[in-house]
Amino acid sequence: MQTHSPATIGIFDSGIGGLTVVREIKRLMPGQPIVYFGDTARTPYGTKSPDIIRRYAVQDTQFLIDQGAEIIVIACHSAASTATAVIEERFSLPVFEVVSPSVMQAVKVTRNKRIGIMGTRATVESRVYDCKIPELMPDATVISQACPLLVPLVEEGWLKRRETRMIVKKYLKPLKDRQVDTLVMGCTHYPLLKEIIKAKAGKRITTVDPSYETALAVRQFLEESGRACTDSPADIGSPAENFQAGREDYFVSDIAPATAEIANRFMGRRIKLVKA
Amino acid sequence: MQTHSPATIGIFDSGIGGLTVVREIKRLMPGQPIVYFGDTARTPYGTKSPDIIRRYAVQDTQFLIDQGAEIIVIACHSAASTATAVIEERFSLPVFEVVSPSVMQAVKVTRNKRIGIMGTRATVESRVYDCKIPELMPDATVISQACPLLVPLVEEGWLKRRETRMIVKKYLKPLKDRQVDTLVMGCTHYPLLKEIIKAKAGKRITTVDPSYETALAVRQFLEESGRACTDSPADIGSPAENFQAGREDYFVSDIAPATAEIANRFMGRRIKLVKA
Repeated sequence: MQTHSPATIGIFDSGIGGLTVVREIKRLMPGQPIVYFGDTARTPYGTKSPDIIRRYAVQDTQFLIDQGAEIIVIACHSAASTATAVIEERFSLPVFEVVSPSVMQAVKVTRNKRIGIMGTRATVESRVYDCKIPELMPDATVISQACPLLVPLVEEGWLKRRETRMIVKKYLKPLKDRQVDTLVMGCTHYPLLKEIIKAKAGKRITTVDPSYETALAVRQFLEESGRACTDSPADIGSPAENFQAGREDYFVSDIAPATAEIANRFMGRRIKLVKA
Repeated sequence: MQTHSPATIGIFDSGIGGLTVVREIKRLMPGQPIVYFGDTARTPYGTKSPDIIRRYAVQDTQFLIDQGAEIIVIACHSAASTATAVIEERFSLPVFEVVSPSVMQAVKVTRNKRIGIMGTRATVESRVYDCKIPELMPDATVISQACPLLVPLVEEGWLKRRETRMIVKKYLKPLKDRQVDTLVMGCTHYPLLKEIIKAKAGKRITTVDPSYETALAVRQFLEESGRACTDSPADIGSPAENFQAGREDYFVSDIAPATAEIANRFMGRRIKLVKA
């Protein structure tokens, strides 16, 4: 029996990549109310400066709180690696982000302590993984590879093309040459290339999916505080007051012609986007 | 002898691609004062909605006027195709953009009246070339191809890679299949791929470079109004009052770690970026 009503999760990203996190959250906690914000009017964050990213991330968080969010998930690696501290300082609510859960999982599964990181240029240059992994495993070797072409390839829907496979292979080569046994797919877009990445990485490398790991961490936190809802909305009889079972609101700051199609591809089903 | 002092040209783009236009302007009019604004805090425009692009373009133009611009060059195809009318209506100064000069040149050089257009998704979806070319040549056939991966490839500096050649070839195939004899490289990033594009297009296709054509159109206008400066700054003895020979100010709304390097690549030399 639940003692509190399920918490509304607020998730933001620079665009729509963060929907891969929402997808995992909804898979693990179907009835949990969520509100999403994608800053499509200013996407991407990955090519912008830390100052600008922090300013945008604070605005995004405030928007989600205004929409009723009780916990925040930073579903954008660029914002997670540069803006988490400022958000925790500025707002008094639980903050999750996509980096820490992957770090914990990578440290758990590596055998040879050589961990590879794929990410956008901003994530790699932030050195967030290079700093966080040694905190948990001081003798780990972290090898990072910026993969800036993968986001546009995913957004184009070139998920199985020969060029995409060639580019993934090229990006993975330096990591394989240095014998990583664990590979963090450090960008919310990359789960859509999971099959290609796994194939090119080979059987000896374990891949870590930040979207899935983050959803797991959020569920664990909510279960411990009695505010998770793992039932499906249809199975919830008389929900507690103020609890909107299965609430799903998807806000974006701009809707371009291709936005809805890309959003559906990320979620794996049709969703309704609302301009904030 | 000049009767008026040379006009300060204000050029804006969603990012730094517009520097290929500045480069051509400076090549044709070395002493002409210019001020550039690249909206790197909100780049790119090509994936955003027409409403947002118009709002941003008006703000960019106002900034350039505040910096002393006397004529405006919209060096962004997405803004040129959606925001030119609103800028002409809102501001009373000469406005140039990167689409019209290429249209005029394409119509001039085609023999079989079959004109191919390469551009971002936003430019192609705006159908600006499909509308403007028939105004000058009613029986022309316009065939467009969205090439959304070329901008990230250029920004990555993958100017001569095998993957880039393959992707260019793939994009050009539908245009070649439909026998275009003229090809507009409809994005300010594409001049950096000019050699690959020309090679893959083949000898039978004439390419049109909007950055060069726009600079030519601006020079012609300024020469006719006696406000051009084709001398090099060093050769100008005693400039007229308020005329800063060779003034070059490059403003951007954000400077990320890679911005300066990419800007230098576009200009073909080192320039100093200032955060607006």
